Amino acid sequence: MSAISSRANEKIKYAVRLGESASLRNEKKEFFLEGARLCRDAAENGIKIRQAFFTEQAKEKYPGYISAVEAVCGDCCTVTPDVADKLSDTKSSQGVFCICEMPQNGGSIDFSGRYIALENLQDPSNLGAVCRTAEALGLDGVIVSGGCDVYNPKALRAAMGSSLRINVISADSLCKVIENANANGMLTLASTPQTDSVKISEIDIDGGIICCVGNEGNGLTDEVIAACSEKVTIPMKGRAESLNASAAAAILMWEISRKG
Amino acid sequence: MSAISSRANEKIKYAVRLGESASLRNEKKEFFLEGARLCRDAAENGIKIRQAFFTEQAKEKYPGYISAVEAVCGDCCTVTPDVADKLSDTKSSQGVFCICEMPQNGGSIDFSGRYIALENLQDPSNLGAVCRTAEALGLDGVIVSGGCDVYNPKALRAAMGSSLRINVISADSLCKVIENANANGMLTLASTPQTDSVKISEIDIDGGIICCVGNEGNGLTDEVIAACSEKVTIPMKGRAESLNASAAAAILMWEISRKG
Repeated sequence: MSAISSRANEKIKYAVRLGESASLRNEKKEFFLEGARLCRDAAENGIKIRQAFFTEQAKEKYPGYISAVEAVCGDCCTVTPDVADKLSDTKSSQGVFCICEMPQNGGSIDFSGRYIALENLQDPSNLGAVCRTAEALGLDGVIVSGGCDVYNPKALRAAMGSSLRINVISADSLCKVIENANANGMLTLASTPQTDSVKISEIDIDGGIICCVGNEGNGLTDEVIAACSEKVTIPMKGRAESLNASAAAAILMWEISRKG
Repeated sequence: MSAISSRANEKIKYAVRLGESASLRNEKKEFFLEGARLCRDAAENGIKIRQAFFTEQAKEKYPGYISAVEAVCGDCCTVTPDVADKLSDTKSSQGVFCICEMPQNGGSIDFSGRYIALENLQDPSNLGAVCRTAEALGLDGVIVSGGCDVYNPKALRAAMGSSLRINVISADSLCKVIENANANGMLTLASTPQTDSVKISEIDIDGGIICCVGNEGNGLTDEVIAACSEKVTIPMKGRAESLNASAAAAILMWEISRKG
């Protein structure tokens, strides 16, 4: 196994850039993953691992996680703690990192399935939290349109591996997805803070559904609200602006997943 | 207005320690608050502000927020950007800080009210998020027993000011609170991942209620589960461990707040 001790090594510089740049991730169809358990999860979920980096300390501390990665990765490098610091997005790195191929799972929607769609979500922690809740509640997928991407390192961490297991569908135009869903008999919901919208608890659900959640500051765009078949709201008693996007999404997903 | 340019100034050192130490906060009955909007919210919600620190840049950028603080605080100091860096818990500080008196709102429970109780929650961001959701959904209060405190700077930030407005009750023994609630006719719920518990959506609610949520890793203690009148669960379809504490609390609060 080769060893890397320089922060200026080309492989290291590429890995750091991959963590920082969504456009590089999309161009290369690769993403950067940090953390012993997350890298093991990727290996066990059939994600293709093109490159892995471990510190010697990590090999002693996480032998089981690392052997799971080594079993599927042909290009493993040892790195010094200083290089691990450079790679890491956290203050106390575990010293385990991978470069993975983006899974080709997305794209198709099952018209009898239940989905949450996120438009222009800005906070990667919110996006990751939504993926985690979507998996726990058994949704059929998460549709992501604009905003941060699920392969953002902060989003991957907040998702605790969920985004590597669930169906993530990347949509250039959420309106087109909604129109196609409407034409195929799905119920499409736009969540808004407006008090004249239907309460989410009063919606009848027995078939396919897409529930759309908007940007943290501005909510859904007018175009998406107009495209959806129904406007829904979570009635609030305190300050209207004070429900966090991932908490709102958790309540909406709970309502659309538990019925029918 | 006096100006502070030294990181070693005693007032600055005290403010930093107050942000870091829960025991110092409890001893002095004071907490440290960062952020232009949060400090303004504190001033407008009747929180006593004993000391405030601003940079010159902040005074130009947030004049409205700062004048709200100045109106209620007799001890305002200007600090240099270097000192603001020392005070700040974030990478890009707004340069607005306060030392506040802890409000004396906690302590009593309305036996006809609806509460979420948190036992040994470790992540201050989860605690803050729960406070924010509790306010939005109109709960009567948040009971905090062990774990991090609501005056942790990260918890204050995640709560977006909610913890300064809602009723926060600090409980040395959650079991005693539960026993007292039972004796006064409240319904007390222990949330668990166990599939033999009652589904939260099937609980009848028409009076006072306390719903308990446990530590992120270990859940509720056996003592609290035994003290509660009912065990409830959020049915999960994916990985049982994968619902985050603040997402689980959001769903539980939604269910206990929308009925009756």
